[in-house]
Amino acid sequence: MAPTDHGTGPIEAVHDPRYLHYLESAWTEWQALGFEHPLIPDTFPLSRLLDGRLDAVAADGTARAMSGHFTFDTATPLVAGTYVAARASANCALSAADAVLAGGRFAFAACRPPGHHAGRDFYGGYCFLNNSAIAATALRSAAGGRVAVLDLDFHHGNGTQQIFWDDPEVLTVSIHGHPDRQYPYFTGRAEEIGAAGAEGSNLNVPLPAGVDDHAYLAAVAGASDRVARFDPAHLVVPLGVDTFVDDPLGDFAVTTDGYARIGRRVASLKLPTVVLLEGGYAVGAIGRNVASFLRGLEQG
Amino acid sequence: MAPTDHGTGPIEAVHDPRYLHYLESAWTEWQALGFEHPLIPDTFPLSRLLDGRLDAVAADGTARAMSGHFTFDTATPLVAGTYVAARASANCALSAADAVLAGGRFAFAACRPPGHHAGRDFYGGYCFLNNSAIAATALRSAAGGRVAVLDLDFHHGNGTQQIFWDDPEVLTVSIHGHPDRQYPYFTGRAEEIGAAGAEGSNLNVPLPAGVDDHAYLAAVAGASDRVARFDPAHLVVPLGVDTFVDDPLGDFAVTTDGYARIGRRVASLKLPTVVLLEGGYAVGAIGRNVASFLRGLEQG
Repeated sequence: MAPTDHGTGPIEAVHDPRYLHYLESAWTEWQALGFEHPLIPDTFPLSRLLDGRLDAVAADGTARAMSGHFTFDTATPLVAGTYVAARASANCALSAADAVLAGGRFAFAACRPPGHHAGRDFYGGYCFLNNSAIAATALRSAAGGRVAVLDLDFHHGNGTQQIFWDDPEVLTVSIHGHPDRQYPYFTGRAEEIGAAGAEGSNLNVPLPAGVDDHAYLAAVAGASDRVARFDPAHLVVPLGVDTFVDDPLGDFAVTTDGYARIGRRVASLKLPTVVLLEGGYAVGAIGRNVASFLRGLEQG
Repeated sequence: MAPTDHGTGPIEAVHDPRYLHYLESAWTEWQALGFEHPLIPDTFPLSRLLDGRLDAVAADGTARAMSGHFTFDTATPLVAGTYVAARASANCALSAADAVLAGGRFAFAACRPPGHHAGRDFYGGYCFLNNSAIAATALRSAAGGRVAVLDLDFHHGNGTQQIFWDDPEVLTVSIHGHPDRQYPYFTGRAEEIGAAGAEGSNLNVPLPAGVDDHAYLAAVAGASDRVARFDPAHLVVPLGVDTFVDDPLGDFAVTTDGYARIGRRVASLKLPTVVLLEGGYAVGAIGRNVASFLRGLEQG
Protein backbone atom coordinates (compact mmCIF):
# COMPACT_ATOMS: atom_id res chain seq x y z
CA MET A 1 0.00 0.00 0.00
CA ALA A 2 1.10 3.59 -0.57
CA PRO A 3 1.79 5.71 2.50
CA THR A 4 -0.51 8.56 3.45
CA ASP A 5 0.64 12.05 4.35
CA HIS A 6 0.54 12.59 8.11
CA GLY A 7 1.69 16.22 8.10
CA THR A 8 4.35 17.61 10.39
CA GLY A 9 2.59 16.99 13.73
CA PRO A 10 3.93 13.45 14.41
CA ILE A 11 7.41 14.55 13.32
CA GLU A 12 7.41 17.63 15.55
CA ALA A 13 6.47 15.33 18.42
CA VAL A 14 9.98 13.83 18.12
CA HIS A 15 12.31 16.35 16.48
CA ASP A 16 13.41 19.84 17.50
CA PRO A 17 11.64 22.61 15.51
CA ARG A 18 14.89 24.43 14.77
CA TYR A 19 16.36 21.19 13.39
CA LEU A 20 13.34 20.61 11.16
CA HIS A 21 13.59 24.17 9.89
CA TYR A 22 17.26 23.56 9.09
CA LEU A 23 16.52 20.30 7.22
CA GLU A 24 13.83 22.01 5.20
CA SER A 25 15.81 25.15 4.31
CA ALA A 26 19.50 24.14 4.32
CA TRP A 27 19.73 23.11 0.69
CA THR A 28 18.15 26.32 -0.57
CA GLU A 29 20.43 28.40 1.66
CA TRP A 30 23.44 26.34 0.59
CA GLN A 31 22.66 27.01 -3.07
CA ALA A 32 22.15 30.72 -2.33
CA LEU A 33 25.71 30.74 -0.96
CA GLY A 34 26.83 29.63 -4.41
CA PHE A 35 27.49 25.95 -3.69
CA GLU A 36 26.34 23.25 -6.11
CA HIS A 37 27.86 20.15 -4.51
CA PRO A 38 26.11 18.14 -1.76
CA LEU A 39 26.21 19.76 1.67
CA ILE A 40 28.72 17.83 3.76
CA PRO A 41 30.04 19.64 6.84
CA ASP A 42 33.78 19.92 7.41
CA THR A 43 33.82 21.53 10.86
CA PHE A 44 32.11 20.21 13.97
CA PRO A 45 31.25 21.75 17.35
CA LEU A 46 33.40 19.57 19.60
CA SER A 47 31.96 20.19 23.05
CA ARG A 48 35.38 20.84 24.60
CA LEU A 49 35.77 23.90 22.35
CA LEU A 50 33.69 25.84 24.83
CA ASP A 51 33.75 23.70 27.94
CA GLY A 52 30.71 21.66 27.02
CA ARG A 53 28.56 24.77 26.76
CA LEU A 54 28.85 25.04 23.00
CA ASP A 55 25.43 23.59 22.27
CA ALA A 56 23.91 26.36 24.35
CA VAL A 57 25.47 28.99 22.11
CA ALA A 58 23.10 30.54 19.63
CA ALA A 59 23.22 28.58 16.38
CA ASP A 60 22.37 31.43 14.10
CA GLY A 61 25.09 31.33 11.46
CA THR A 62 24.69 30.48 7.80
CA ALA A 63 24.12 26.93 6.53
CA ARG A 64 27.86 26.90 5.81
CA ALA A 65 28.74 27.82 9.38
CA MET A 66 26.07 25.80 11.15
CA SER A 67 26.00 22.59 9.13
CA GLY A 68 28.33 20.75 11.54
CA HIS A 69 25.94 21.57 14.38
CA PHE A 70 23.23 19.33 12.98
CA THR A 71 25.10 16.14 12.13
CA PHE A 72 27.85 13.93 13.48
CA ASP A 73 29.40 12.51 10.31
CA THR A 74 30.55 13.27 6.79
CA ALA A 75 28.85 10.20 5.28
CA THR A 76 25.43 11.79 4.91
CA PRO A 77 25.19 14.32 2.07
CA LEU A 78 22.27 16.73 2.22
CA VAL A 79 20.97 17.36 -1.30
CA ALA A 80 18.01 18.91 -3.09
CA GLY A 81 15.55 16.10 -2.39
CA THR A 82 16.63 15.21 1.13
CA TYR A 83 13.85 16.79 3.15
CA VAL A 84 11.07 15.61 0.84
CA ALA A 85 12.47 12.06 0.85
CA ALA A 86 12.82 12.03 4.64
CA ARG A 87 9.23 13.22 5.04
CA ALA A 88 8.01 10.49 2.67
CA SER A 89 9.96 7.89 4.63
CA ALA A 90 8.41 9.08 7.90
CA ASN A 91 4.99 8.82 6.25
CA CYS A 92 5.76 5.17 5.42
CA ALA A 93 6.55 4.54 9.08
CA LEU A 94 3.41 6.33 10.25
CA SER A 95 1.24 4.44 7.73
CA ALA A 96 2.64 1.14 9.04
CA ALA A 97 1.80 2.28 12.56
CA ASP A 98 -1.73 3.06 11.36
CA ALA A 99 -2.07 -0.47 10.00
CA VAL A 100 -1.14 -1.95 13.36
CA LEU A 101 -3.38 0.49 15.22
CA ALA A 102 -6.19 -0.68 12.92
CA GLY A 103 -5.71 -4.20 14.24
CA GLY A 104 -2.95 -5.64 12.07
CA ARG A 105 -0.69 -8.11 13.88
CA PHE A 106 2.31 -6.57 12.13
CA ALA A 107 3.13 -4.15 9.36
CA PHE A 108 6.31 -3.51 7.43
CA ALA A 109 7.41 -0.13 6.00
CA ALA A 110 10.13 -0.07 3.33
CA CYS A 111 11.49 3.24 4.62
CA ARG A 112 14.10 5.11 2.59
CA PRO A 113 16.06 7.01 3.82
CA PRO A 114 16.48 5.00 7.04
CA GLY A 115 16.03 6.61 10.45
CA HIS A 116 17.74 5.12 13.50
CA HIS A 117 20.85 7.36 13.51
CA ALA A 118 18.80 10.57 13.53
CA GLY A 119 18.47 12.17 16.95
CA ARG A 120 16.17 14.83 18.26
CA ASP A 121 18.19 17.54 16.51
CA PHE A 122 20.84 15.87 14.39
CA TYR A 123 21.22 13.62 11.37
CA GLY A 124 23.84 11.08 10.35
CA GLY A 125 24.32 7.59 8.91
CA TYR A 126 22.02 8.40 5.97
CA CYS A 127 19.21 9.12 8.47
CA PHE A 128 17.39 12.47 8.79
CA LEU A 129 14.12 11.74 10.55
CA ASN A 130 13.94 8.92 13.08
CA ASN A 131 11.19 6.78 11.60
CA SER A 132 11.11 4.35 14.54
CA ALA A 133 10.89 7.12 17.11
CA ILE A 134 8.16 8.83 15.08
CA ALA A 135 6.20 5.57 14.78
CA ALA A 136 6.72 4.71 18.47
CA THR A 137 5.54 8.16 19.54
CA ALA A 138 2.50 7.95 17.24
CA LEU A 139 1.60 4.53 18.66
CA ARG A 140 1.80 5.84 22.23
CA SER A 141 -0.15 8.92 21.35
CA ALA A 142 -2.94 6.97 19.65
CA ALA A 143 -3.20 3.92 21.91
CA GLY A 144 -1.40 4.76 25.15
CA GLY A 145 0.76 2.23 26.93
CA ARG A 146 4.45 1.60 26.71
CA VAL A 147 6.36 0.99 23.50
CA ALA A 148 9.53 -1.03 22.98
CA VAL A 149 11.97 -0.43 20.12
CA LEU A 150 14.10 -3.48 19.26
CA ASP A 151 16.82 -2.32 16.87
CA LEU A 152 18.15 -5.19 14.73
CA ASP A 153 20.39 -3.12 12.44
CA PHE A 154 24.13 -3.93 12.47
CA HIS A 155 24.90 -0.42 13.79
CA HIS A 156 23.99 1.09 17.13
CA GLY A 157 20.69 2.99 17.04
CA ASN A 158 22.34 6.06 18.52
CA GLY A 159 19.63 8.48 17.45
CA THR A 160 16.81 6.43 18.92
CA GLN A 161 18.76 6.02 22.15
CA GLN A 162 19.23 9.80 22.36
CA ILE A 163 15.58 10.58 21.67
CA PHE A 164 14.21 8.30 24.39
CA TRP A 165 17.20 8.53 26.78
CA ASP A 166 15.17 10.05 29.61
CA ASP A 167 11.81 8.43 28.84
CA PRO A 168 11.00 5.49 31.16
CA GLU A 169 7.93 4.63 29.06
CA VAL A 170 9.88 3.69 25.93
CA LEU A 171 12.34 0.78 26.06
CA THR A 172 15.11 1.08 23.49
CA VAL A 173 17.17 -2.03 22.77
CA SER A 174 19.96 -2.22 20.20
CA ILE A 175 22.04 -5.25 19.14
CA HIS A 176 25.08 -4.15 17.14
CA GLY A 177 28.76 -4.26 16.32
CA HIS A 178 30.81 -2.93 19.25
CA PRO A 179 31.42 0.85 18.93
CA ASP A 180 35.13 0.45 19.67
CA ARG A 181 35.31 -1.17 16.25
CA GLN A 182 32.29 -0.04 14.26
CA TYR A 183 30.32 3.01 13.22
CA PRO A 184 28.76 5.11 14.72
CA TYR A 185 31.45 4.78 17.41
CA PHE A 186 31.31 6.63 20.76
CA THR A 187 27.92 5.25 21.85
CA GLY A 188 26.37 1.80 22.06
CA ARG A 189 28.09 0.42 25.17
CA ALA A 190 26.32 -1.75 27.71
CA GLU A 191 26.93 0.89 30.38
CA GLU A 192 24.44 3.24 28.68
CA ILE A 193 21.22 2.33 30.47
CA GLY A 194 19.18 5.55 30.30
CA ALA A 195 19.08 8.86 32.16
CA ALA A 196 18.50 9.21 35.88
CA GLY A 197 14.83 8.39 36.38
CA ALA A 198 14.83 6.16 33.32
CA GLU A 199 17.52 3.65 34.27
CA GLY A 200 16.99 0.34 32.52
CA SER A 201 14.95 1.85 29.69
CA ASN A 202 17.95 1.52 27.34
CA LEU A 203 19.73 -1.75 26.63
CA ASN A 204 22.79 -1.97 24.41
CA VAL A 205 24.12 -5.34 23.26
CA PRO A 206 27.49 -4.66 21.60
CA LEU A 207 28.88 -7.76 19.90
CA PRO A 208 32.24 -8.89 18.48
CA ALA A 209 32.91 -9.55 14.81
CA GLY A 210 31.81 -12.85 13.31
CA VAL A 211 28.45 -13.22 15.05
CA ASP A 212 26.54 -16.03 13.26
CA ASP A 213 22.87 -17.09 13.29
CA HIS A 214 23.29 -18.94 16.56
CA ALA A 215 25.03 -16.10 18.39
CA TYR A 216 22.70 -13.50 16.95
CA LEU A 217 19.63 -15.49 17.93
CA ALA A 218 20.99 -15.77 21.46
CA ALA A 219 21.29 -11.98 21.60
CA VAL A 220 17.75 -11.61 20.23
CA ALA A 221 16.47 -14.07 22.83
CA GLY A 222 18.04 -12.04 25.64
CA ALA A 223 16.71 -8.80 24.21
CA SER A 224 13.25 -10.32 23.74
CA ASP A 225 13.16 -11.36 27.37
CA ARG A 226 13.84 -7.77 28.32
CA VAL A 227 11.09 -6.57 25.98
CA ALA A 228 8.64 -9.08 27.46
CA ARG A 229 9.42 -7.94 31.02
CA PHE A 230 8.86 -4.32 29.96
CA ASP A 231 5.32 -5.36 28.93
CA PRO A 232 4.82 -2.89 26.08
CA ALA A 233 1.57 -2.37 24.21
CA HIS A 234 3.43 -2.19 20.90
CA LEU A 235 6.78 -3.17 19.44
CA VAL A 236 8.77 -1.28 16.80
CA VAL A 237 11.59 -3.14 15.02
CA PRO A 238 14.11 -1.06 13.04
CA LEU A 239 15.39 -3.91 10.86
CA GLY A 240 18.76 -3.66 9.16
CA VAL A 241 19.96 -6.53 7.00
CA ASP A 242 23.56 -5.32 7.23
CA THR A 243 24.02 -8.13 9.76
CA PHE A 244 24.09 -10.38 6.66
CA VAL A 245 27.12 -12.60 6.12
CA ASP A 246 27.90 -10.98 2.76
CA ASP A 247 27.27 -7.37 3.81
CA PRO A 248 30.23 -5.20 2.76
CA LEU A 249 30.00 -2.89 5.79
CA GLY A 250 28.98 -5.17 8.63
CA ASP A 251 31.15 -7.96 10.06
CA PHE A 252 28.40 -10.32 11.30
CA ALA A 253 27.47 -13.57 9.58
CA VAL A 254 23.69 -13.87 9.69
CA THR A 255 22.23 -15.95 6.83
CA THR A 256 19.03 -15.58 4.84
CA ASP A 257 17.57 -18.55 6.74
CA GLY A 258 18.76 -16.92 9.95
CA TYR A 259 16.49 -13.93 9.32
CA ALA A 260 13.46 -16.24 9.29
CA ARG A 261 14.45 -17.67 12.65
CA ILE A 262 14.99 -14.15 14.02
CA GLY A 263 11.55 -13.16 12.72
CA ARG A 264 9.97 -16.17 14.46
CA ARG A 265 11.71 -15.26 17.72
CA VAL A 266 10.39 -11.69 17.51
CA ALA A 267 6.90 -13.00 16.69
CA SER A 268 6.97 -15.15 19.81
CA LEU A 269 6.62 -11.91 21.81
CA LYS A 270 3.00 -11.81 20.57
CA LEU A 271 3.04 -8.04 20.27
CA PRO A 272 1.51 -5.80 17.59
CA THR A 273 4.68 -5.00 15.68
CA VAL A 274 5.80 -2.29 13.25
CA VAL A 275 8.89 -3.28 11.25
CA LEU A 276 10.85 -0.48 9.53
CA LEU A 277 13.69 -0.89 7.08
CA GLU A 278 17.09 0.40 8.17
CA GLY A 279 20.49 -0.49 6.68
CA GLY A 280 21.68 -3.20 4.28
CA TYR A 281 24.56 -2.84 1.82
CA ALA A 282 24.55 -6.19 0.04
CA VAL A 283 21.96 -4.49 -2.11
CA GLY A 284 21.03 -7.50 -4.22
CA ALA A 285 20.24 -9.49 -1.08
CA ILE A 286 18.15 -6.91 0.79
CA GLY A 287 14.86 -8.12 -0.68
CA ARG A 288 15.25 -11.81 0.07
CA ASN A 289 16.66 -11.19 3.55
CA VAL A 290 13.84 -8.84 4.53
CA ALA A 291 11.28 -11.23 3.02
CA SER A 292 12.80 -14.08 5.00
CA PHE A 293 12.48 -12.08 8.24
CA LEU A 294 8.86 -11.16 7.45
CA ARG A 295 7.96 -14.78 6.61
CA GLY A 296 9.40 -15.80 9.96
CA LEU A 297 7.40 -13.09 11.68
CA GLU A 298 4.25 -14.32 9.94
CA GLN A 299 4.88 -17.94 10.89
CA GLY A 300 5.81 -17.17 14.49
CA MET B 1 68.88 30.43 14.53
CA ALA B 2 67.90 26.80 14.68
CA PRO B 3 65.49 25.76 17.44
CA THR B 4 66.68 23.64 20.34
CA ASP B 5 64.88 20.56 21.62
CA HIS B 6 62.95 21.31 24.80
CA GLY B 7 61.65 17.80 25.38
CA THR B 8 58.05 17.00 26.27
CA GLY B 9 57.86 18.90 29.59
CA PRO B 10 56.70 22.29 28.24
CA ILE B 11 54.23 20.55 25.93
CA GLU B 12 52.76 18.43 28.70
CA ALA B 13 52.28 21.64 30.68
CA VAL B 14 49.61 22.57 28.10
CA HIS B 15 48.25 19.43 26.45
CA ASP B 16 46.45 16.40 27.85
CA PRO B 17 48.71 13.32 28.15
CA ARG B 18 46.17 11.04 26.47
CA TYR B 19 45.96 13.45 23.54
CA LEU B 20 49.75 13.56 23.18
CA HIS B 21 49.85 9.77 23.24
CA TYR B 22 47.24 9.71 20.49
CA LEU B 23 49.15 12.21 18.33
CA GLU B 24 52.33 10.19 18.72
CA SER B 25 50.79 6.76 18.05
CA ALA B 26 47.77 7.34 15.79
CA TRP B 27 49.57 7.05 12.47
CA THR B 28 51.25 3.77 13.40
CA GLU B 29 47.96 2.35 14.65
CA TRP B 30 46.16 3.62 11.53
CA GLN B 31 48.68 1.83 9.32
CA ALA B 32 48.35 -1.32 11.40
CA LEU B 33 44.62 -1.26 10.62
CA GLY B 34 45.59 -1.50 6.95
CA PHE B 35 45.02 2.13 5.94
CA GLU B 36 47.51 3.95 3.75
CA HIS B 37 45.72 7.27 3.16
CA PRO B 38 45.95 10.25 5.54
CA LEU B 39 43.90 9.87 8.72
CA ILE B 40 40.86 12.15 8.41
CA PRO B 41 37.94 11.35 10.71
CA ASP B 42 34.45 10.92 9.31
CA THR B 43 32.46 10.57 12.53
CA PHE B 44 32.41 13.03 15.42
CA PRO B 45 31.22 12.80 19.04
CA LEU B 46 28.46 15.39 18.94
CA SER B 47 27.79 16.10 22.60
CA ARG B 48 24.01 15.68 22.24
CA LEU B 49 24.58 12.01 21.30
CA LEU B 50 24.85 11.23 24.98
CA ASP B 51 23.36 14.27 26.67
CA GLY B 52 26.63 16.16 26.82
CA ARG B 53 28.28 13.40 28.81
CA LEU B 54 29.98 11.84 25.81
CA ASP B 55 33.41 13.28 26.55
CA ALA B 56 33.30 11.56 29.92
CA VAL B 57 32.91 8.17 28.24
CA ALA B 58 36.07 6.12 28.06
CA ALA B 59 37.87 6.86 24.80
CA ASP B 60 39.48 3.50 24.41
CA GLY B 61 38.58 2.46 20.88
CA THR B 62 40.92 2.05 17.93
CA ALA B 63 42.42 4.99 16.04
CA ARG B 64 39.64 4.40 13.50
CA ALA B 65 36.93 4.69 16.13
CA MET B 66 38.44 7.44 18.24
CA SER B 67 39.88 9.77 15.62
CA GLY B 68 36.84 12.08 15.67
CA HIS B 69 37.28 12.49 19.42
CA PHE B 70 40.54 14.39 18.98
CA THR B 71 39.71 16.90 16.26
CA PHE B 72 36.89 19.16 15.15
CA ASP B 73 37.38 19.26 11.38
CA THR B 74 38.17 17.24 8.27
CA ALA B 75 40.71 19.77 6.95
CA THR B 76 43.64 18.50 8.99
CA PRO B 77 45.08 15.20 7.74
CA LEU B 78 47.24 13.30 10.19
CA VAL B 79 50.14 11.66 8.33
CA ALA B 80 53.40 9.89 8.99
CA GLY B 81 55.42 13.01 9.90
CA THR B 82 52.73 14.93 11.78
CA TYR B 83 53.88 14.39 15.34
CA VAL B 84 57.56 15.01 14.59
CA ALA B 85 56.71 18.20 12.69
CA ALA B 86 54.44 19.47 15.45
CA ARG B 87 57.16 18.84 18.05
CA ALA B 88 59.68 20.72 15.91
CA SER B 89 57.26 23.62 15.55
CA ALA B 90 56.75 23.76 19.32
CA ASN B 91 60.53 23.78 19.74
CA CYS B 92 60.66 26.85 17.46
CA ALA B 93 58.13 28.60 19.70
CA LEU B 94 60.01 27.61 22.85
CA SER B 95 63.34 28.76 21.39
CA ALA B 96 61.80 32.16 20.57
CA ALA B 97 60.55 32.36 24.16
CA ASP B 98 64.10 31.57 25.32
CA ALA B 99 65.45 34.47 23.25
CA VAL B 100 63.03 36.89 24.90
CA LEU B 101 63.72 35.44 28.36
CA ALA B 102 67.42 36.04 27.64
CA GLY B 103 66.65 39.73 27.23
CA GLY B 104 65.60 40.10 23.60
CA ARG B 105 62.96 42.79 22.99
CA PHE B 106 61.22 40.45 20.58
CA ALA B 107 61.75 37.17 18.78
CA PHE B 108 60.00 35.60 15.83
CA ALA B 109 59.49 31.85 15.27
CA ALA B 110 58.58 30.62 11.77
CA CYS B 111 56.44 27.81 13.20
CA ARG B 112 55.11 25.11 10.86
CA PRO B 113 52.63 23.58 11.43
CA PRO B 114 50.78 26.48 13.06
CA GLY B 115 49.20 26.17 16.51
CA HIS B 116 46.29 28.41 17.50
CA HIS B 117 43.45 26.01 16.63
CA ALA B 118 44.87 23.21 18.79
CA GLY B 119 43.21 22.90 22.19
CA ARG B 120 44.19 21.06 25.31
CA ASP B 121 43.13 17.74 23.78
CA PHE B 122 42.16 18.34 20.18
CA TYR B 123 43.65 19.39 16.86
CA GLY B 124 42.21 21.17 13.84
CA GLY B 125 42.89 23.91 11.31
CA TYR B 126 46.30 22.39 10.45
CA CYS B 127 47.31 22.83 14.14
CA PHE B 128 48.35 19.98 16.45
CA LEU B 129 50.28 21.59 19.30
CA ASN B 130 49.37 25.09 20.42
CA ASN B 131 52.68 26.87 19.99
CA SER B 132 51.43 30.14 21.52
CA ALA B 133 50.01 28.43 24.58
CA ILE B 134 53.22 26.43 24.99
CA ALA B 135 55.36 29.59 24.70
CA ALA B 136 53.07 31.57 27.03
CA THR B 137 53.16 28.81 29.63
CA ALA B 138 56.96 28.55 29.36
CA LEU B 139 57.31 32.33 29.79
CA ARG B 140 55.13 32.27 32.91
CA SER B 141 56.94 29.28 34.28
CA ALA B 142 60.38 30.82 33.77
CA ALA B 143 59.74 34.46 34.64
CA GLY B 144 56.43 34.57 36.51
CA GLY B 145 53.90 37.31 35.93
CA ARG B 146 50.97 37.48 33.61
CA VAL B 147 51.10 36.77 29.89
CA ALA B 148 48.89 38.18 27.14
CA VAL B 149 48.27 36.41 23.83
CA LEU B 150 47.21 38.75 21.02
CA ASP B 151 46.04 36.59 18.10
CA LEU B 152 46.31 38.43 14.78
CA ASP B 153 45.42 35.51 12.50
CA PHE B 154 42.33 35.91 10.30
CA HIS B 155 40.64 32.99 12.11
CA HIS B 156 39.49 32.79 15.71
CA GLY B 157 42.16 31.32 18.00
CA ASN B 158 39.69 28.77 19.33
CA GLY B 159 42.32 26.40 20.73
CA THR B 160 44.13 29.11 22.66
CA GLN B 161 40.83 30.37 24.04
CA GLN B 162 39.96 26.86 25.20
CA ILE B 163 43.32 26.26 26.84
CA PHE B 164 43.27 29.45 28.93
CA TRP B 165 39.48 29.74 29.31
CA ASP B 166 39.57 29.46 33.10
CA ASP B 167 42.97 31.05 33.72
CA PRO B 168 42.72 34.66 34.95
CA GLU B 169 46.51 35.08 34.64
CA VAL B 170 46.60 34.71 30.86
CA LEU B 171 44.74 37.22 28.71
CA THR B 172 43.70 35.80 25.34
CA VAL B 173 42.65 38.28 22.65
CA SER B 174 41.63 37.30 19.11
CA ILE B 175 40.73 39.58 16.18
CA HIS B 176 39.09 37.57 13.39
CA GLY B 177 36.41 37.04 10.77
CA HIS B 178 33.02 36.56 12.45
CA PRO B 179 32.29 32.86 13.14
CA ASP B 180 28.81 33.10 11.66
CA ARG B 181 30.62 33.45 8.35
CA GLN B 182 34.09 32.04 8.75
CA TYR B 183 36.00 29.03 9.99
CA PRO B 184 36.35 27.72 12.67
CA TYR B 185 32.67 28.67 13.27
CA PHE B 186 30.86 28.08 16.58
CA THR B 187 33.31 30.08 18.74
CA GLY B 188 34.83 33.54 18.55
CA ARG B 189 31.89 35.70 19.64
CA ALA B 190 32.26 38.77 21.82
CA GLU B 191 30.09 37.13 24.50
CA GLU B 192 32.87 34.61 25.23
CA ILE B 193 34.75 36.39 28.02
CA GLY B 194 36.26 33.52 30.05
CA ALA B 195 35.05 31.06 32.65
CA ALA B 196 33.55 32.03 36.01
CA GLY B 197 36.47 33.34 38.02
CA ALA B 198 38.30 34.40 34.87
CA GLU B 199 35.76 36.80 33.36
CA GLY B 200 37.45 39.36 31.18
CA SER B 201 40.49 37.19 30.54
CA ASN B 202 39.25 36.41 27.02
CA LEU B 203 38.43 39.05 24.42
CA ASN B 204 37.02 38.21 21.01
CA VAL B 205 36.81 40.84 18.29
CA PRO B 206 34.77 39.30 15.45
CA LEU B 207 34.78 41.50 12.34
CA PRO B 208 32.79 41.74 9.09
CA ALA B 209 34.22 41.08 5.64
CA GLY B 210 36.26 43.78 3.93
CA VAL B 211 38.22 45.03 6.93
CA ASP B 212 41.05 47.25 5.58
CA ASP B 213 44.22 48.62 7.17
CA HIS B 214 42.35 51.42 8.90
CA ALA B 215 39.64 49.21 10.37
CA TYR B 216 42.10 46.49 11.34
CA LEU B 217 44.39 49.01 13.05
CA ALA B 218 41.41 50.34 15.02
CA ALA B 219 40.72 46.78 16.23
CA VAL B 220 44.40 46.33 17.14
CA ALA B 221 44.36 49.64 19.02
CA GLY B 222 41.37 48.53 21.09
CA ALA B 223 42.92 45.14 21.74
CA SER B 224 46.25 46.75 22.67
CA ASP B 225 44.51 48.97 25.22
CA ARG B 226 43.10 45.85 26.83
CA VAL B 227 46.53 44.23 26.82
CA ALA B 228 48.07 47.32 28.42
CA ARG B 229 45.45 47.38 31.19
CA PHE B 230 46.12 43.68 31.87
CA ASP B 231 49.74 44.65 32.56
CA PRO B 232 51.41 41.43 31.42
CA ALA B 233 55.11 40.64 31.82
CA HIS B 234 55.24 39.18 28.32
CA LEU B 235 53.27 39.27 25.09
CA VAL B 236 52.79 36.41 22.64
CA VAL B 237 51.53 37.27 19.14
CA PRO B 238 50.22 34.41 16.96
CA LEU B 239 50.55 36.21 13.63
CA GLY B 240 48.58 35.08 10.61
CA VAL B 241 48.96 36.91 7.32
CA ASP B 242 45.68 35.49 6.03
CA THR B 243 44.26 38.93 6.82
CA PHE B 244 46.04 39.98 3.60
CA VAL B 245 43.97 41.58 0.85
CA ASP B 246 44.91 38.86 -1.64
CA ASP B 247 44.53 35.90 0.71
CA PRO B 248 42.38 33.22 -0.95
CA LEU B 249 40.77 32.10 2.33
CA GLY B 250 40.34 35.29 4.33
CA ASP B 251 38.04 38.16 3.38
CA PHE B 252 39.94 41.06 5.00
CA ALA B 253 41.95 43.63 3.03
CA VAL B 254 45.13 44.33 5.03
CA THR B 255 48.06 45.46 2.84
CA THR B 256 51.77 44.77 3.08
CA ASP B 257 52.30 48.33 4.35
CA GLY B 258 49.46 47.78 6.78
CA TYR B 259 51.40 44.98 8.47
CA ALA B 260 54.23 47.43 9.26
CA ARG B 261 51.76 49.80 10.91
CA ILE B 262 50.25 46.92 12.88
CA GLY B 263 53.74 45.90 13.98
CA ARG B 264 54.44 49.46 15.17
CA ARG B 265 51.17 49.53 17.12
CA VAL B 266 52.06 46.24 18.84
CA ALA B 267 55.56 47.54 19.58
CA SER B 268 54.07 50.59 21.29
CA LEU B 269 53.01 48.27 24.11
CA LYS B 270 56.72 48.12 25.06
CA LEU B 271 56.48 44.48 26.07
CA PRO B 272 58.95 41.64 25.53
CA THR B 273 57.20 39.94 22.64
CA VAL B 274 57.25 36.48 21.06
CA VAL B 275 55.79 36.41 17.54
CA LEU B 276 54.77 33.02 16.11
CA LEU B 277 53.69 32.29 12.56
CA GLU B 278 50.11 31.10 12.07
CA GLY B 279 48.10 31.10 8.82
CA GLY B 280 48.62 32.71 5.41
CA TYR B 281 47.43 31.25 2.10
CA ALA B 282 48.71 33.79 -0.41
CA VAL B 283 51.86 31.73 -0.17
CA GLY B 284 54.04 33.94 -2.35
CA ALA B 285 53.27 36.95 -0.15
CA ILE B 286 53.79 35.36 3.29
CA GLY B 287 57.46 36.34 3.43
CA ARG B 288 57.11 40.01 2.61
CA ASN B 289 54.03 40.46 4.80
CA VAL B 290 55.69 38.85 7.82
CA ALA B 291 58.88 40.85 7.17
CA SER B 292 56.81 44.04 6.97
CA PHE B 293 55.20 43.28 10.35
CA LEU B 294 58.58 42.51 11.93
CA ARG B 295 60.14 45.71 10.54
CA GLY B 296 57.24 47.66 12.06
CA LEU B 297 57.77 45.89 15.36
CA GLU B 298 61.47 46.74 15.23
CA GLN B 299 60.78 50.40 14.45
CA GLY B 300 58.04 50.81 17.03
